[in-house]
Amino acid sequence: MEARKILRQEIEAADGVVQVVGAHNAIGARLVERNNFDAVWAGGFEISAAQGKPDANILTMTEFLDAARQMVESTALPVIADCDTGFGHTNNVIRMVTDYERAGVAAVCIEDKVFPKTNSFIEGRQTLESVENFCEKIVAAQYAKEDPDFLVIARIESLIAGEGMKRALERAHYYEEAGADMILIHSKKETADEVFQFSSKWKKHLPVAVVPTTYPDVTLQQLKDNNITMVIYANQILRAAVKAMDNALSSLAASGSLTNLSQLASMDDIFELQGMNKMLATEEWIKRTSASSVVRKS
Amino acid sequence: MEARKILRQEIEAADGVVQVVGAHNAIGARLVERNNFDAVWAGGFEISAAQGKPDANILTMTEFLDAARQMVESTALPVIADCDTGFGHTNNVIRMVTDYERAGVAAVCIEDKVFPKTNSFIEGRQTLESVENFCEKIVAAQYAKEDPDFLVIARIESLIAGEGMKRALERAHYYEEAGADMILIHSKKETADEVFQFSSKWKKHLPVAVVPTTYPDVTLQQLKDNNITMVIYANQILRAAVKAMDNALSSLAASGSLTNLSQLASMDDIFELQGMNKMLATEEWIKRTSASSVVRKS
Amino acid sequence: MEARKILRQEIEAADGVVQVVGAHNAIGARLVERNNFDAVWAGGFEISAAQGKPDANILTMTEFLDAARQMVESTALPVIADCDTGFGHTNNVIRMVTDYERAGVAAVCIEDKVFPKTNSFIEGRQTLESVENFCEKIVAAQYAKEDPDFLVIARIESLIAGEGMKRALERAHYYEEAGADMILIHSKKETADEVFQFSSKWKKHLPVAVVPTTYPDVTLQQLKDNNITMVIYANQILRAAVKAMDNALSSLAASGSLTNLSQLASMDDIFELQGMNKMLATEEWIKRTSASSVVRKS
Amino acid sequence: MEARKILRQEIEAADGVVQVVGAHNAIGARLVERNNFDAVWAGGFEISAAQGKPDANILTMTEFLDAARQMVESTALPVIADCDTGFGHTNNVIRMVTDYERAGVAAVCIEDKVFPKTNSFIEGRQTLESVENFCEKIVAAQYAKEDPDFLVIARIESLIAGEGMKRALERAHYYEEAGADMILIHSKKETADEVFQFSSKWKKHLPVAVVPTTYPDVTLQQLKDNNITMVIYANQILRAAVKAMDNALSSLAASGSLTNLSQLASMDDIFELQGMNKMLATEEWIKRTSASSVVRKS
Repeated sequence: MEARKILRQEIEAADGVVQVVGAHNAIGARLVERNNFDAVWAGGFEISAAQGKPDANILTMTEFLDAARQMVESTALPVIADCDTGFGHTNNVIRMVTDYERAGVAAVCIEDKVFPKTNSFIEGRQTLESVENFCEKIVAAQYAKEDPDFLVIARIESLIAGEGMKRALERAHYYEEAGADMILIHSKKETADEVFQFSSKWKKHLPVAVVPTTYPDVTLQQLKDNNITMVIYANQILRAAVKAMDNALSSLAASGSLTNLSQLASMDDIFELQGMNKMLATEEWIKRTSASSVVRKS
Repeated sequence: MEARKILRQEIEAADGVVQVVGAHNAIGARLVERNNFDAVWAGGFEISAAQGKPDANILTMTEFLDAARQMVESTALPVIADCDTGFGHTNNVIRMVTDYERAGVAAVCIEDKVFPKTNSFIEGRQTLESVENFCEKIVAAQYAKEDPDFLVIARIESLIAGEGMKRALERAHYYEEAGADMILIHSKKETADEVFQFSSKWKKHLPVAVVPTTYPDVTLQQLKDNNITMVIYANQILRAAVKAMDNALSSLAASGSLTNLSQLASMDDIFELQGMNKMLATEEWIKRTSASSVVRKS
Repeated sequence: MEARKILRQEIEAADGVVQVVGAHNAIGARLVERNNFDAVWAGGFEISAAQGKPDANILTMTEFLDAARQMVESTALPVIADCDTGFGHTNNVIRMVTDYERAGVAAVCIEDKVFPKTNSFIEGRQTLESVENFCEKIVAAQYAKEDPDFLVIARIESLIAGEGMKRALERAHYYEEAGADMILIHSKKETADEVFQFSSKWKKHLPVAVVPTTYPDVTLQQLKDNNITMVIYANQILRAAVKAMDNALSSLAASGSLTNLSQLASMDDIFELQGMNKMLATEEWIKRTSASSVVRKS
Repeated sequence: MEARKILRQEIEAADGVVQVVGAHNAIGARLVERNNFDAVWAGGFEISAAQGKPDANILTMTEFLDAARQMVESTALPVIADCDTGFGHTNNVIRMVTDYERAGVAAVCIEDKVFPKTNSFIEGRQTLESVENFCEKIVAAQYAKEDPDFLVIARIESLIAGEGMKRALERAHYYEEAGADMILIHSKKETADEVFQFSSKWKKHLPVAVVPTTYPDVTLQQLKDNNITMVIYANQILRAAVKAMDNALSSLAASGSLTNLSQLASMDDIFELQGMNKMLATEEWIKRTSASSVVRKS
């Protein structure tokens, strides 16, 4: 898998911040690629919301995997799959890693909450998994993977759940020892100070990823200066799509006509994104090639 | 199924035009409902494009059905499923109707092109099915359905494929005789004149639906004045979403920060749309109810 | 759903023991119907094993549901779905009941172990759910269902996990109070004495089901005499199929020819079971009906 | 994919007949492996029948692919997928090959009937695809594959459809020229004479496979002597399973007790086949490994 090697090299290169954007479907993943980002985040929040389900492990692994597989099939970028808590315990993690790896995903991220989890921005309900249990999941993930370039990202929810910085760092050390390839430190503060505090105390160890949903003003330069290796813009694309669909619908409802819907991608752009033009060209090539083989034989 | 009765009544009421909007996922269907439209169109173009595949029967019936099922589960509105050519011949249509009806869909639409079809706005490749074969599909669909309120819409592609108005009307008569519940007349002209010409010659028969992709300026009043019973805005929502995602991505790529992404739905709005708040409230109700049952028993 | 009414009436009739047989696919469900049993058990053990996965919640709800849906579609018998622990907590149970009911299942069974569960005949690993948590699941299931004939069966694992008879009965009372429609009491003893002891102490309450895997000699008369309302033969059909496939394969491997494979269903029997003959007859009917509609119109 | 290399080598070695056995689920595939056959045939007839659907392209590609994927995941043997007519035209074949290859399948087989096909042993309904169209499918399949070891088998139905031997050989030559890796010649005669006549006239070209459903007495030595490279026992395992399930059910129905069901695989054998023992052992290893990592860190 070329995409896995690329992701690993980007992370190791450390000459910038690896920029990852969340998507909830294949056409979104293509847009992430078209805009030259480094990787796609197949995020639980986006995928759940798109399917009309709360971000609380209501969708099954099968449904998350299908969504991730669609993204893998539609882009050459590495796809990083948000796998919540691993969908159960170690045996579920083993199946998960096996299936996601076979689907061509480049990396999986699991977090140290108990199954079923709830979105980190919902108050309460943020019960953490014990270090012992979560380390077992990391070991299980590393056991299950076959491609050494496949990455296992351990997401720490200590700062979300109120355990404090000291415990977050302890967990990071345990997870590194258990075999994690990367640490994602999550925070719901309105500035990046908290995650920068983490990275400053941690900096000589595994690379660190962050998700700046609540601190959107942070810049790439600040992230780089604070030893953050990867930034995940996890939910903005869905939120842009929802806002635009809602606006278009209210405009249509108000006017009773499509006339005023100005902010639409053209049909041609959709045809291009969905691969229609490529399909038609390939079909022609196949017809010519096949016809010449028939002629050769006759 | 209440939604089926509602759709049938809306069509029969004839006191306005039934307004249907295409969606490609559950959250889109919820937005269609929130904006007070009458029904959701689970359209082949939108669903294919969202999954990164050409609109050419590359997705399987299973995949289209899953998408339609997600919409049904997320809205109280009737869902009308675009089933292309019926995914094969009569036996495939029988399975299709059985499965879509069980999934709670209110109506299916099949078109008189041969499988595998290509999007109507692609030049060439618009081979039509014979009247005989297509009437068999209509009979098969009516045979397979169990709920009399479940509707079978016959879509005529004569005007797309260049067969002319006379043949379009002939087909409509044959399809009515075979048992169709409604006619969808498709056109790629830049005004509604062609479909109005159809409806004026047809008006005493089955109700007529149109898809004004290429004649977006048509108004509800014009549609009503020309005996059009249903209008399907089939692809604008996806196009709005794609444009917005693309804009957000290019802004993010240019600035290296989320600061300037102004047109985003709030996290709270997504939580509401995905049912998070309802889930939390229900959970509380269950806890209280269950606790009181335990106390009663003790 | 006629099948649900039938199941409820059979259970309430109490003029015999309702006989339910486990299946792992649609053709098996058809065989259960052909042999005049009362209902099909879409069992976790059989379905997991058929898909090559341990009976330990390794398959997802989606996969179990797909298997149950296939059975529903292939038989007029009621299908009772084994839903293990409900695939998580109350919110998962709500989704589960909603989806299984929409799929046409007649009843679901949930058990009072923690997710992810392990098969009851595996030593150890039989941690039970608290009464509080499990009652919440029962309340959630009753909340989610729409058809009053849809049944929620509460399976008690106290005798499997070593909690003892007294606690099993306590749990049964709590579960009844929370709203369960039926109790399944599981045992791994080599005689039926244990489950009969349970039913004798319980008999005036909810109907009781048993699974005589480890006490296969029990007769219908004994079950009836001991107030058992339903018997579930949960795994024998898969075990018969596996034994036969293994025997056929070893015979084929030994002889290098199909000659000696005597115990095979005929191709014609498979055609009949898979609905080929019905399909061909329906197709002819559709052709004639459609042709006469075309003639009428011409 | 090691399995693909193995299959190609077996076919090229030509020191015996490659023996392939059909399965309809993962546990069947494991039994094929346990009995030392060379490969598994994920056959359309078996998979359709198991799911209660006629063998007439009623199941979708998604459903066939899921069944094949389950087999791939459960065995180290190569899995050869029966893909009927390729599920449509060239664009469908491209998607099919891409998806089956990603799922880890070793080879696909497509046949020269028109979509939707009907089982070859059903009288009539055996319309053949034109040479031109079918060659396009072969070219499309070769275009789509990425692993050179992935094989495309072209199945010829001339002898089924009554086109005669001469035309069968012509088709074989055209298909070879278009890029097929192997020819499957199908026959419904009660002896192997017909397929042997084919192979004797063909012998210096692509390797040949046969499916001896109607000529079960043929031996491996006869196949080898007649230059048949691969034999596919396509449906016997399902037929053995159905017969055994039916027998068990009728015995159970007659006796009202499980006592007389003697021909059952043991629970322990099912546990072994479904990977329960391996799962438990792995779980222990993970616990120990993880605990030592935690200790190291403390």
